[in-house]
Amino acid sequence: MATRMTQDALVTGISNAATRMRIESVRSTSEAGSGHPTSCCSAADIVATLFFYVMRYDPKNPKHPRSDRFVLSKGHAAPLLYAAWAEAGLLDKADLLKLRTLDSDLEGHPTPRLNFVDVATGSLGQGLSAGVGMAINDQRLDESPARTYVLMGDGESVEGAVWESVELARHCNLDNLCAIVDINRLGQSDPTMLQHEMEAYRSRWAGFGWHAMVVEGHDIPALMAAFDEAAFTRGKPSVVLARTLKGKGITSIEDKPNWHGKPLKKGEEAQKAIDELTRQLRQSADKPEIRKPEAGKGGSKPVKAMASPAYQSSDSVATREAFGSALVALGEANPLVVGLDADVKNSTFTEKFGAQFPDRFMECFIAEQAMVGAAVGLAACGKIPFAATFACFLTRAYDFIRMAAISQSNIKLMGSHAGVSIGEDGPSQMGLEDLAMMSAQPGVVVLYPSDAVCAHRLVEAAAAHRGPVYIRTGRPKCPILYANDQTFKIGGSIVLRQGPADRLTIVAAGVTLFEALKAHEKLQAEGIAVRVIDLYSIVPVDQATLIESARTTGGQILTVEDHYEHGGLGDAVLGAVAAEGIKVHKLAVREIPHSGKPDELLERHGISAGRIVEAAKKLV
Amino acid sequence: MATRMTQDALVTGISNAATRMRIESVRSTSEAGSGHPTSCCSAADIVATLFFYVMRYDPKNPKHPRSDRFVLSKGHAAPLLYAAWAEAGLLDKADLLKLRTLDSDLEGHPTPRLNFVDVATGSLGQGLSAGVGMAINDQRLDESPARTYVLMGDGESVEGAVWESVELARHCNLDNLCAIVDINRLGQSDPTMLQHEMEAYRSRWAGFGWHAMVVEGHDIPALMAAFDEAAFTRGKPSVVLARTLKGKGITSIEDKPNWHGKPLKKGEEAQKAIDELTRQLRQSADKPEIRKPEAGKGGSKPVKAMASPAYQSSDSVATREAFGSALVALGEANPLVVGLDADVKNSTFTEKFGAQFPDRFMECFIAEQAMVGAAVGLAACGKIPFAATFACFLTRAYDFIRMAAISQSNIKLMGSHAGVSIGEDGPSQMGLEDLAMMSAQPGVVVLYPSDAVCAHRLVEAAAAHRGPVYIRTGRPKCPILYANDQTFKIGGSIVLRQGPADRLTIVAAGVTLFEALKAHEKLQAEGIAVRVIDLYSIVPVDQATLIESARTTGGQILTVEDHYEHGGLGDAVLGAVAAEGIKVHKLAVREIPHSGKPDELLERHGISAGRIVEAAKKLV
Repeated sequence: MATRMTQDALVTGISNAATRMRIESVRSTSEAGSGHPTSCCSAADIVATLFFYVMRYDPKNPKHPRSDRFVLSKGHAAPLLYAAWAEAGLLDKADLLKLRTLDSDLEGHPTPRLNFVDVATGSLGQGLSAGVGMAINDQRLDESPARTYVLMGDGESVEGAVWESVELARHCNLDNLCAIVDINRLGQSDPTMLQHEMEAYRSRWAGFGWHAMVVEGHDIPALMAAFDEAAFTRGKPSVVLARTLKGKGITSIEDKPNWHGKPLKKGEEAQKAIDELTRQLRQSADKPEIRKPEAGKGGSKPVKAMASPAYQSSDSVATREAFGSALVALGEANPLVVGLDADVKNSTFTEKFGAQFPDRFMECFIAEQAMVGAAVGLAACGKIPFAATFACFLTRAYDFIRMAAISQSNIKLMGSHAGVSIGEDGPSQMGLEDLAMMSAQPGVVVLYPSDAVCAHRLVEAAAAHRGPVYIRTGRPKCPILYANDQTFKIGGSIVLRQGPADRLTIVAAGVTLFEALKAHEKLQAEGIAVRVIDLYSIVPVDQATLIESARTTGGQILTVEDHYEHGGLGDAVLGAVAAEGIKVHKLAVREIPHSGKPDELLERHGISAGRIVEAAKKLV
Repeated sequence: MATRMTQDALVTGISNAATRMRIESVRSTSEAGSGHPTSCCSAADIVATLFFYVMRYDPKNPKHPRSDRFVLSKGHAAPLLYAAWAEAGLLDKADLLKLRTLDSDLEGHPTPRLNFVDVATGSLGQGLSAGVGMAINDQRLDESPARTYVLMGDGESVEGAVWESVELARHCNLDNLCAIVDINRLGQSDPTMLQHEMEAYRSRWAGFGWHAMVVEGHDIPALMAAFDEAAFTRGKPSVVLARTLKGKGITSIEDKPNWHGKPLKKGEEAQKAIDELTRQLRQSADKPEIRKPEAGKGGSKPVKAMASPAYQSSDSVATREAFGSALVALGEANPLVVGLDADVKNSTFTEKFGAQFPDRFMECFIAEQAMVGAAVGLAACGKIPFAATFACFLTRAYDFIRMAAISQSNIKLMGSHAGVSIGEDGPSQMGLEDLAMMSAQPGVVVLYPSDAVCAHRLVEAAAAHRGPVYIRTGRPKCPILYANDQTFKIGGSIVLRQGPADRLTIVAAGVTLFEALKAHEKLQAEGIAVRVIDLYSIVPVDQATLIESARTTGGQILTVEDHYEHGGLGDAVLGAVAAEGIKVHKLAVREIPHSGKPDELLERHGISAGRIVEAAKKLV
């Protein structure tokens, strides 16, 4: 590939780069007093071969859109990644010694605070899913020749999420994707299950339909040949199964247990290792040339304004269906919007988007982690992915959502079938903790539309917002509450019922908002005036409106939600008014529900109109 | 196996049972107006062969300890499971028509509200992990000849969690475990990725080291032979890959798309299907005999009192380490206690338990879903499993925790490395949403010890409590706060500092409790008296003490926690005092943290002693 040097000189150059990267990894972790030098050393030859032979990129512009992509799934080898970018010329080597300090973005595990990191890693087994999203982007959406390389550890290859992405990558014939497993035999606390059984690794990956190559991971010519073979393999993804030694190059710790996540002691111990590594540098004046990204078409397609909703006041539409319709309207307006689903597209109504934009829709089958991970990968490529499944099944991907929050990834998640109001399918299908789990993550916007107009507008708002957004939708059909020109904003709320004599503020969203409106009517008939607020934005929450409303209605709020009692709408309200001495009473689902009819369940769990009336009467 | 009948009569008997189970599945879902009859029909021959040829069990006592175990991982085929138990004589067939009603525990998906269900299913891809726990129990702990059968769908076999358990089962040589994949080709919204590519299925399972058999899933003699082969296969688990047709037996819907999760319309449509199935019944007077469980030793080993903690007041011990020591003491007292970890046992200190009780310790490697699932399986066998990893990595298993809550499984989870106080490793390794995610689940006890004595006692309390418990521990060493005879109870709290002039109640736990105590000292030096409460039980929370304390200290509470702002300790306090008009001010981590030194991070995120002092001064 790089042509001007002889093969020998090239190998020497790569090898020296690897050795220098080992030295920097030892030095920076010793300086920090923590970190994973042995995990860096096992992967150094692989990373050097990728950075200085295989990959095409611009070391001055790591965000070049047609660069090959590199994901360090084994994020604890971060010092090696930083050393590679220093070797490539992007970072100053002196800065490497600021590793893990508050003043430097060279953190313990990579985050996109660094311009050469696309996705945060460090929770193992996630990198491949992001790589699938990137490879899909390049293959199907951008028609880019860029290739994606994902470096995994052997320990992490046990994570189930890896195998979801392995299956999906094969299904999508992602021959622009190459995984590398750094098989150094040793986990954190024990040898791995398969240690150096290379044939066992091969049979797993090949069994899943990948082009699997077993190589000596410290043999640079062998690595070069394997990556060449991967690049020429068509119709399927490739994996380089690299047999390596943890701590390679440092005799005292090489292939030894109990050296995971331990730096060499600053001073003599570290210096001895650095000296040993330095002696491994071979005489050479040549530095391998970094291959430039291919030139090619770019340019973004125009984004139009999204069509307004066009519902009739007499319509009855589930918010999940309105979401599906809105996604089509959004897709027509914005070519960057991509849809993903996990085999429930006929329930989440992403099937509408899939039918309209088959090239921009990715069916992930029953693999929620792979779906969210792919969405994060697509977002890293500048797309605006909307990934949908039942709200309860997003719990499956919570660690991916957590890491997406750390990345402040521009993903949009939709969870349907919220709450007991799904009815007969029973508790395993009811999303009752989704608001809690999403709200817990900093920077995630959490939205909860009650009618189709609001759902439409919040899809629009979600796409316009930069960062992760969650939209909760429900199963049952609901009346239309709002005029098509009603505006909604992230952080807003709408006071639906109010009067000067209001003695209580009722706050709700989703199905319970309709129960609250029914309760309002019943209470009004009995001469009890209450205010009703649609809290369609849970995070951020409309603190001002809540406080003001509570103050003018006797200092009391009643919240009603089809969600478990902790971490949902009620707690969002509580959090907003906590410092004000306002009394808040929560109606929420307080026990594991049972199969039954939706109305029966609202009643049993104390969130029906009747139960709201009862609670309100006690309070006023 | 059953000997009195001829092979032909036996096959006819099993086939007729399968047909009757299909009929009941159609009838009950039509009556309910929802459900998954086609998913029942594809699996009917498999389940009938298991229930009436393969499995040894007592149909009058499904909890018989030496029964073979059956896990319906594809929980949406619940009507088939209910029909099988009716066919076996445990249920009244008339009751099957109460499916999915509030009055019957025959829910849409199986839950342990039914005595023949060990673990709730319905979130796909979880059954095998429970099966691994059961098989481990029988093989290693109870030395029981019982075998475990797990019936999965083909769609769900994409879930990564499945492959975690596949790897673990092979590693543990679980030849008493048999998985069955009902390969009916059709998912909910689309054909599956592999449809009827049986060789692709075989290469995956065999590639992972299982004994894999491909059979026609409606050929009863072939199924019988495969299960016999599985029973005689030694040293590895077996999988029966059964090629089936969705809706088998009902011509109009057999192998047709768009029939997932749809009942036949009550009346003519259903009756036509029932008539067609009825015609498939073959003339026979014989009913296959159900094989009884093997007799064998039983009897529980004696449980002793757990040793008290024996810390010196001058000790400095991390709560994670105290947890590890307590687990050993508990293990000595109670032979039912089992330990599990996910390759961080040298960080969570479960390695102490593993060293002391190697037979009762299960290393799950980097597979948190498989670990929690196996714990649920072990709990279903009467064990008290303690499963530990970093708190942040329990997010990986959140769907498993959700389903464990639905099962009200007797699992105990420990999450270590809570909060920013872990320091340099950075946000990917910090558990900052664990309290939120655990508290959201009904019936989960959430505990948060601050010192080693408390950690010890809460391990004891967790084991004594029936139901899921979560214990949060920290990384840094901490002083000893309590005398070894201090008592702690679930739902309790301890007022550590108080006086008649207290003007504010500060509530904390974990590292922030020590910051609060430092703040107390500083404030005292400035003449400001504040109360300090150790809130070691987050759920349930000590509402009475919180309210009373707040009332006597000016109606204000300041909470401090090394957790994100939503759903943690602060919100637990808020929830407890919400209706009282008490003002609550939360100090918590409000943004994605950065790598740094623990003390720097406590300061930056506003939860250090200094920041508590500042906040307190503003309030009093």
